[in-house]
Amino acid sequence: MSKKINIIGAGLVGSLLSIYLAKRGYKIDLFERRPDMRTANISAGKSINLALSDRGWKGLEGVGIADEIKKIAIPMYARAIHHKDGSTVHQPYGKDNQAIYSVSRAEINMRLMDLAEQQENVNIHFNERCTSIDRKSLTAEFINDETKKVKTAQSDLLFGSDGAFAASRLNMQLTSDRFEYNQHYISAGYKELIIPSGPNGEFLLEKNALHIWPRGSFMMIALPNMDGNFTCTLFFPFEGEKSFASIKTREQVQNFFEEEFTDAVPLMPTLLDDYMNNPVSSLVTVKCFPWTFDNKIGLIGDAAHAIVPFFGQGMNCGFEDCVVLNDLIEKHKEDWTKIFDEYQTLRKPDGDAIADLAVANFIEMRDKTADPKFLLQKKIEARFNGKYPEKWIPLYSMVTYSPHIRYSTALKEGQKQEAIMQKIMAMPDIDKKWDSIEIENEMLKYL
Amino acid sequence: MSKKINIIGAGLVGSLLSIYLAKRGYKIDLFERRPDMRTANISAGKSINLALSDRGWKGLEGVGIADEIKKIAIPMYARAIHHKDGSTVHQPYGKDNQAIYSVSRAEINMRLMDLAEQQENVNIHFNERCTSIDRKSLTAEFINDETKKVKTAQSDLLFGSDGAFAASRLNMQLTSDRFEYNQHYISAGYKELIIPSGPNGEFLLEKNALHIWPRGSFMMIALPNMDGNFTCTLFFPFEGEKSFASIKTREQVQNFFEEEFTDAVPLMPTLLDDYMNNPVSSLVTVKCFPWTFDNKIGLIGDAAHAIVPFFGQGMNCGFEDCVVLNDLIEKHKEDWTKIFDEYQTLRKPDGDAIADLAVANFIEMRDKTADPKFLLQKKIEARFNGKYPEKWIPLYSMVTYSPHIRYSTALKEGQKQEAIMQKIMAMPDIDKKWDSIEIENEMLKYL
Repeated sequence: MSKKINIIGAGLVGSLLSIYLAKRGYKIDLFERRPDMRTANISAGKSINLALSDRGWKGLEGVGIADEIKKIAIPMYARAIHHKDGSTVHQPYGKDNQAIYSVSRAEINMRLMDLAEQQENVNIHFNERCTSIDRKSLTAEFINDETKKVKTAQSDLLFGSDGAFAASRLNMQLTSDRFEYNQHYISAGYKELIIPSGPNGEFLLEKNALHIWPRGSFMMIALPNMDGNFTCTLFFPFEGEKSFASIKTREQVQNFFEEEFTDAVPLMPTLLDDYMNNPVSSLVTVKCFPWTFDNKIGLIGDAAHAIVPFFGQGMNCGFEDCVVLNDLIEKHKEDWTKIFDEYQTLRKPDGDAIADLAVANFIEMRDKTADPKFLLQKKIEARFNGKYPEKWIPLYSMVTYSPHIRYSTALKEGQKQEAIMQKIMAMPDIDKKWDSIEIENEMLKYL
Repeated sequence: MSKKINIIGAGLVGSLLSIYLAKRGYKIDLFERRPDMRTANISAGKSINLALSDRGWKGLEGVGIADEIKKIAIPMYARAIHHKDGSTVHQPYGKDNQAIYSVSRAEINMRLMDLAEQQENVNIHFNERCTSIDRKSLTAEFINDETKKVKTAQSDLLFGSDGAFAASRLNMQLTSDRFEYNQHYISAGYKELIIPSGPNGEFLLEKNALHIWPRGSFMMIALPNMDGNFTCTLFFPFEGEKSFASIKTREQVQNFFEEEFTDAVPLMPTLLDDYMNNPVSSLVTVKCFPWTFDNKIGLIGDAAHAIVPFFGQGMNCGFEDCVVLNDLIEKHKEDWTKIFDEYQTLRKPDGDAIADLAVANFIEMRDKTADPKFLLQKKIEARFNGKYPEKWIPLYSMVTYSPHIRYSTALKEGQKQEAIMQKIMAMPDIDKKWDSIEIENEMLKYL
């Protein structure tokens, strides 16, 4: 008889996980707190648009659904940096046709739910809010927020994929001795705004780019949507001289945006209403351990490792969790004691690494992408990578385009590279001789 | 009309806090999860014996109850270090008659409850387990674990003094955006054992000392009780070659103790039964922020900052919280917005500092107290302190005997001192010229 698996949370990772497990023959029940977003008109939760990259694609390919998702994804080949004077500069994201892909969280979530339900052994239950988990009998209790009825569901294995504020994880925290737990909020929050499509549905900024207005202590970004809109996100400190606390009235907003985002303001006809009405959301990093309990309960995705969005890796990391888990099921031939043990031992350092990389990338995006010295450094690295692709893969490429490189390895290599580049950038006249054989040999020496 | 204050948790800090607030005229209801330990025969919770020192005494003196507590406290003037060969060495804790005081947690908690109830405006309610707090109406909900009845209690202000795993703090965590939270367990746990009194009720080790068997990666300590017993505590890694995981059978315990704690074994007739029957407890540090909410809810003691016991400061820090809060009530003339704001701004760095100092002191106690080089360093510091008491107060004395020095200041000063002592200890022939004028001048130079 095939094992029964309950999954708490039918978000991006829970839905994909259900497909992986269903294809291995498990019987899956997926419990989702929210109504079915395919029929109810609700949001998919707080979200900036998401950037799908190679780790995510690999996760989708693993169950043969990458082509389905590609239909709703817009490739972004470069950063388009918008300076304060209104000028724009392109920074390619990688070589050749390397791109990251803009997807709407709601769109991809709905497709994944469709694809999950196409598996005959997957059932999704909506409006079911998990209130507790009895670890001994592995029975989860739910309150249906529509019918107000309580139900329980027993299973052989259970996964918590219910996000940064996971009920499943809280339950483990409260019932486990020696549970390591850390939640940390960065000092900036975000607010979503919009650049609508033009009169004929056309994109009013370059479609195939991730637009950034880097301004030092804050930034705005814009990602394309299928319907010609751009979702803009203002990342802004909660407190301080330029912050959500100080920019509050319509007049302040108007002046602030005209000063800082000159070229965007004419494209944002609903700016003032959006700013006044849309909520400010916070940005949390969650680290915890263990990720598995009693050899039958596992945390996955944001429930195990919530990260800030600045490396565009939250979803990609969660999809990669599914790949890692699937590989371990194969390796350990359904021995879940071994699977869970290796899953958390192997994957925890990678979760920690991408969490730290994501926080660090906020500084890079909001501050350094406008810094000529930083841009020169990236040019030197790209040139060196072109000549010695085996010796030097830039950090961004390791994280974004190299699923064969672990996040933890990328973090370590990136730190080594940064130490080398500090020395290179300190050399006299580096701006003149940056593409010289001398610099190249110097870098080879340090490696 | 005087304000009504509810306090969740009638432990050491909650009981003392109720006295402070009652003396200012507030009407206090104190809700305690456990039965009344003065009538029921139950433990006061997991605990090694506690070491009361100057910050704690100051907290008791502030409401005139230090003399009452002194009756149940045993002064310890020195560390008695027990070496593996059975020899013993004394290390005075301070100058002259400076001492820390051994008290039983249950004893002092019961006295504090008595003293609280002597205030006519304090009522203690037992068996009342807090299940939620409605922040808008400031109404706490309790389930009585004896009668199974639910009750609610409204108040003007509310304090959570319900310990490391506070229900009050969890409630704030779940209902606050941007709540910083970290819980971290060290890799060692502890088990309580006993050295009973002799045939005539006499102490079988020196009464007025804190006994330590430092063994590098682990240690045992023993503190005197009023009835002639010593409470022994084995601090031991959970995993590893010598650990709770590896020492499990009666035979292993017997061999291990004979090898490591030679001189103690003959004094521990119930060792094997105690080791097999007593639980292993874990040791957690909790850091969080904010400590106050909505200008009417405050966390205090372990609920705000749970620390490991190795500096003997958990209770002392909690009592000092009461002193700080009382001073701020005076300063801000009952303006609780200002009181709460300054309480958490002022006190949070001190809570963080003593948390870090406590973890660091584990290494000092279990490892360095047996190291001749460390002992020489302490001798040099003590000598210098004797000659220049204004210029150099050893870290242990700052923390333990100097309530006028903030924990955060002690931590910073201690780090400076340690950097200086590293240089001093690296000088050639330091063991020969440690008490020379040359060393003294060298230290003066660095200061």
